Amino acid sequence: MSSEFGKLIKASVFGQSHGTAIGVTIDGLPAGERVDLEELQRFLNRRRPGASPLSTARKEADAPEFLSGLENGITCGSPLCAVIRNADQHSKDYGGLTDTPRPGHADYTAAVKWGGQADMRGGGHFSGRLTAPLCIAGGIAKQILARRGIFVGAHLQAAAGIQDERFPLYPSRELLEGIGAKAFPVLNDGAGEKMQAAILEAKSSLDSVGGVIECAAVGLPAGLGDPMFEGVENRLAAALFGIPAVKGVEFGEGFHAADLRGSENNDAFVMESGAVRTQTNHAGGILGGITTGMPLILRAAVKPTPSIGREQRTVSLAAGETAALTIHGRHDPCIAHRAVPVVEAVTAMVLLDMLMEGNHGTF
Amino acid sequence: MSSEFGKLIKASVFGQSHGTAIGVTIDGLPAGERVDLEELQRFLNRRRPGASPLSTARKEADAPEFLSGLENGITCGSPLCAVIRNADQHSKDYGGLTDTPRPGHADYTAAVKWGGQADMRGGGHFSGRLTAPLCIAGGIAKQILARRGIFVGAHLQAAAGIQDERFPLYPSRELLEGIGAKAFPVLNDGAGEKMQAAILEAKSSLDSVGGVIECAAVGLPAGLGDPMFEGVENRLAAALFGIPAVKGVEFGEGFHAADLRGSENNDAFVMESGAVRTQTNHAGGILGGITTGMPLILRAAVKPTPSIGREQRTVSLAAGETAALTIHGRHDPCIAHRAVPVVEAVTAMVLLDMLMEGNHGTF
Amino acid sequence: MSSEFGKLIKASVFGQSHGTAIGVTIDGLPAGERVDLEELQRFLNRRRPGASPLSTARKEADAPEFLSGLENGITCGSPLCAVIRNADQHSKDYGGLTDTPRPGHADYTAAVKWGGQADMRGGGHFSGRLTAPLCIAGGIAKQILARRGIFVGAHLQAAAGIQDERFPLYPSRELLEGIGAKAFPVLNDGAGEKMQAAILEAKSSLDSVGGVIECAAVGLPAGLGDPMFEGVENRLAAALFGIPAVKGVEFGEGFHAADLRGSENNDAFVMESGAVRTQTNHAGGILGGITTGMPLILRAAVKPTPSIGREQRTVSLAAGETAALTIHGRHDPCIAHRAVPVVEAVTAMVLLDMLMEGNHGTF
Amino acid sequence: MSSEFGKLIKASVFGQSHGTAIGVTIDGLPAGERVDLEELQRFLNRRRPGASPLSTARKEADAPEFLSGLENGITCGSPLCAVIRNADQHSKDYGGLTDTPRPGHADYTAAVKWGGQADMRGGGHFSGRLTAPLCIAGGIAKQILARRGIFVGAHLQAAAGIQDERFPLYPSRELLEGIGAKAFPVLNDGAGEKMQAAILEAKSSLDSVGGVIECAAVGLPAGLGDPMFEGVENRLAAALFGIPAVKGVEFGEGFHAADLRGSENNDAFVMESGAVRTQTNHAGGILGGITTGMPLILRAAVKPTPSIGREQRTVSLAAGETAALTIHGRHDPCIAHRAVPVVEAVTAMVLLDMLMEGNHGTF
Repeated sequence: MSSEFGKLIKASVFGQSHGTAIGVTIDGLPAGERVDLEELQRFLNRRRPGASPLSTARKEADAPEFLSGLENGITCGSPLCAVIRNADQHSKDYGGLTDTPRPGHADYTAAVKWGGQADMRGGGHFSGRLTAPLCIAGGIAKQILARRGIFVGAHLQAAAGIQDERFPLYPSRELLEGIGAKAFPVLNDGAGEKMQAAILEAKSSLDSVGGVIECAAVGLPAGLGDPMFEGVENRLAAALFGIPAVKGVEFGEGFHAADLRGSENNDAFVMESGAVRTQTNHAGGILGGITTGMPLILRAAVKPTPSIGREQRTVSLAAGETAALTIHGRHDPCIAHRAVPVVEAVTAMVLLDMLMEGNHGTF
Repeated sequence: MSSEFGKLIKASVFGQSHGTAIGVTIDGLPAGERVDLEELQRFLNRRRPGASPLSTARKEADAPEFLSGLENGITCGSPLCAVIRNADQHSKDYGGLTDTPRPGHADYTAAVKWGGQADMRGGGHFSGRLTAPLCIAGGIAKQILARRGIFVGAHLQAAAGIQDERFPLYPSRELLEGIGAKAFPVLNDGAGEKMQAAILEAKSSLDSVGGVIECAAVGLPAGLGDPMFEGVENRLAAALFGIPAVKGVEFGEGFHAADLRGSENNDAFVMESGAVRTQTNHAGGILGGITTGMPLILRAAVKPTPSIGREQRTVSLAAGETAALTIHGRHDPCIAHRAVPVVEAVTAMVLLDMLMEGNHGTF
Repeated sequence: MSSEFGKLIKASVFGQSHGTAIGVTIDGLPAGERVDLEELQRFLNRRRPGASPLSTARKEADAPEFLSGLENGITCGSPLCAVIRNADQHSKDYGGLTDTPRPGHADYTAAVKWGGQADMRGGGHFSGRLTAPLCIAGGIAKQILARRGIFVGAHLQAAAGIQDERFPLYPSRELLEGIGAKAFPVLNDGAGEKMQAAILEAKSSLDSVGGVIECAAVGLPAGLGDPMFEGVENRLAAALFGIPAVKGVEFGEGFHAADLRGSENNDAFVMESGAVRTQTNHAGGILGGITTGMPLILRAAVKPTPSIGREQRTVSLAAGETAALTIHGRHDPCIAHRAVPVVEAVTAMVLLDMLMEGNHGTF
Repeated sequence: MSSEFGKLIKASVFGQSHGTAIGVTIDGLPAGERVDLEELQRFLNRRRPGASPLSTARKEADAPEFLSGLENGITCGSPLCAVIRNADQHSKDYGGLTDTPRPGHADYTAAVKWGGQADMRGGGHFSGRLTAPLCIAGGIAKQILARRGIFVGAHLQAAAGIQDERFPLYPSRELLEGIGAKAFPVLNDGAGEKMQAAILEAKSSLDSVGGVIECAAVGLPAGLGDPMFEGVENRLAAALFGIPAVKGVEFGEGFHAADLRGSENNDAFVMESGAVRTQTNHAGGILGGITTGMPLILRAAVKPTPSIGREQRTVSLAAGETAALTIHGRHDPCIAHRAVPVVEAVTAMVLLDMLMEGNHGTF
């Protein structure tokens, strides 16, 4: 396995949902970087459930303890390890899951892979809870990037089939930070109201909905990334699919580009204030796997929460026959809005890693 | 950079469109595998241009020479290196491109990264021509997989906005092989006719169109892949974004899952002939990054060919001012149909690599 | 940086000597493996100082807490994270080291690399204390290997210029385990007495000595490892040089082979009980980077402890001039004997990793 | 397998001794670097046999053809692939080797790994011939390093038990280049005469001898390398053990350090011309895995050529019984002197790779 990503900066995630603790080790962070712990906590709180009726009632303080790598609030060059102790687990809710795998979850595949030893209480290592350590890593990366004029932000571009606006051609730092300060991370609050209503409606129907997250990074230099298999798209996609429930990743126009003509989709180069820019940004800031210097734009599709309150059909692995399953416990009717900071976190980590490598075409 | 992908089996691609040769080294192929060279050539021919008015007129024989790793038609355990000599280049057509980067191409980003040394004749290392060595690798992988009951096939699911049918729940080996034998790789030939007409229409308008490729792999065991960052989705996406012009990758329902409800998107588990299967396959055969044993389904979005005959706006890098550009030379009005075997090739390589690793949850 | 090694099983080490905690995350361990915690603690105790006048007086309980990956004493397939809290640090002893780097230590190179932010108290991340997490990983690997008939053991083959015997052609499991049970890890206790006397003599002279560790692994299948850069020697050496103070690694006859003739150094193949063996084992069980099935034999050279009580010459980085330095605090006059289990640990981890990969020449 | 090494610059070697061609792909070379092909050929010639009675009579022109990555003699940013066609093979000399493995060679381990498909003619992929592509890569790396004031050179420090002098504290560029220009690569030509006589004597006894190669790199900045498992020592050792017949690698005093006292082995820091240096260099220019800025010093032990003319004992794998073997064909009575440029090549490649990464403790 590898619950790790990164090349010069590696983030290695550990923990099970109902184990002793979850955490992350980040190896390769530059030394001398101050981490604003209050800002980090605010970032972690964006992912945290329990703040609204939209989310599970699980109480998670998500307050990381730093075991290494951070001395007096400054990175010291050694691997940074941060852990969050687990608490408030209701493991008994998951008693029968080893025999009757939940549809849409990894219960069955984990059982195939690891046999009866898999600790799948609360989703185990596959749980959305593991995105908390990702946000610790990404929250730190965001601070380091911001110090260099690079800002990463995301919004919920769609949920339950309701669309938010798309990012403008040049999302400003203020725009990106503003979304992060909102209770519900959308550009158009009217669309956000409708999304929330739809989520609550799904909840009351014992059902769930999915969504699409759009993420932007501004301030990136041109020339990051390598052709073919180590391009910006390859590395971001490889990491983003590590977020539970992500089933699609696209850049710029993405799948929509397939419906466009070349004359529509090509971004004309223009000179602006002495810099080469493109008039549109259908490429999402990437050509040939390499950044153009325009804003990086990506989208990730999040499937509807597989845990729903309705009775579902599954099998009893022991009995070898069909069975009915009703999942108890606390579940989010939508996780897409909570995944918004997670997409930011993973994007920030990948970009910081690529920046460390530099755009070493020449040296 | 890394023009390489894979973990236990690595494929390393080299060459520029108008250089001496292009090729691939595959390190880690199992020994003792017979390569049917005629079948491989037929596979390569599917990617080859020049067969129809839909494609560029460049004559490419694409006949690989094997420098190592293959003795008497059988893999010998050493790295396999295959090369294709370049010929029939019209390099003069690309004379001015270093100064006036083509919109939608990597000319500008390559110039930023490598300075004036980048060999961008014909797209250089970013050219679609580099997919020929990928097809050598993937064509061999397909043969090795087929010997183990695993079949990989793809079709053009959309082009110019026209939709083909989707794969059925259980694509058969015959279905997959049948598409490969067609002149135009679709399931529904009527849809294919419309696509071809639309492509020719775009060509006559000096324009181009994009498409979506749907790929299936059947016969995979359950339990392949690892959680989080080395799942099947992560590894396939990382490799698929290495195909030039791919701007989106999704699995199962992909982006459409974002619009579904959990009760619709969850795949119920059922027992069939003593085996655990799912009644639907919205997950595309992957849960938690690990194969379920159901068919693997993915889609890749291919943008419209950036080379179009119309005059476009760009900049003169030397003069630092806006310029007009008309691209001469031969260009495909659509590359999506030619990319169908390339998606198969990359998918087959990643799957073979993962099979070599085994589903080593226990050992 | 990467404080990590391994391919399918990755061990990632974190912590500074005087930070909050040290630890290791092991990603990719097979599931379903019972870990005998008492046996593991006995293994960790072999590395632990404080047991004799030969070692530093620092009290280290070295009792790991398992944060993840181990449920009810059995590996569950998720990454295993174990931490040891630091205690009993005398950080004030290291006050001036950032200005006057200790000869033979990483103080200077860390200052160059990380500037003033490096946490070098007690050696920071470079400290021998970081070998405790390595021993957690390796101790678990040893148990998993032993269950499959593979035994790894080492002895102090030389210290202070005094030689122990060499391993016999076929070290038995009992021999290997017997050394581990000894207070001083040698084959010939008489030689061990002399070594200990020499170490104490060095201590009383405010000096230190080095040593050589010989390690064997028996029960390995033939066919592990790959040619050229992923051979058994490459991978073991890459990991063994991660043990602080190791300055040389050799296999079989190693450097001595350079003085032999081919007719002496070649190991004749013989049939024994229906199996191919070699009559001698100058190759240390490896030919062409691949295991022969004979015992694997390697040696690692450990330099004398750089911390000595004598006044030494160094520079003041701030003043830019030569300075005198006397190191206070607790220091081992020899660390080679304590490094014996560490060499076993690293060797066991690398071998387990290679076993997981299998000898996949064919599949 | 992986016949590849490197992180940001990867060198991937392919070919069998008696196959169609051997070669190397170097992915990640900086663009815009001129390659002096005559200087490269002179470097390759140092490795080439046939120049003296000390070597095999095989005629190898070793003239590389560049298939990609080099345009008009300048690197263009794309992967550089160079091949050497094989010729003058006497494959029939190797007819029976698949059944009766040669002692000291990889014949047996290759047969275990790859079964009967292994192409072991002339040693196949394990042959010393594969060091020619390594020298292409390393010869280019040496030129790039020299342009930045970094010089890599090596000499035969011992052969047949006869010692050359050791490098002085500060080997000059002239000294390093001077050895490369000699017919026999030693510091002390008198010692070289004795070595050559001993090699010829071994040849006349149908036997062979080994040797030790000492390599230096001067001009390196301080701060290269990372702690623990990605230090300079780890990465160099991992690559150097990829050279056939290398059985030991050490840095600075290496194994000899085990016999020294701390007060002898520690290198005192001193200020010289405003720079921090060490008075001695027992550390070989590396502390904590990171360069100190002093010359890098390493040694590699090369075993005696396993191919000797005397009858040897082996087994018939088919018959399952002991057999006698007399190896015919052309063989070097010593390969250590021909391996001198190979050690330089591999060292240069690893150092260039690490330089590309930079000493990114901070950024």
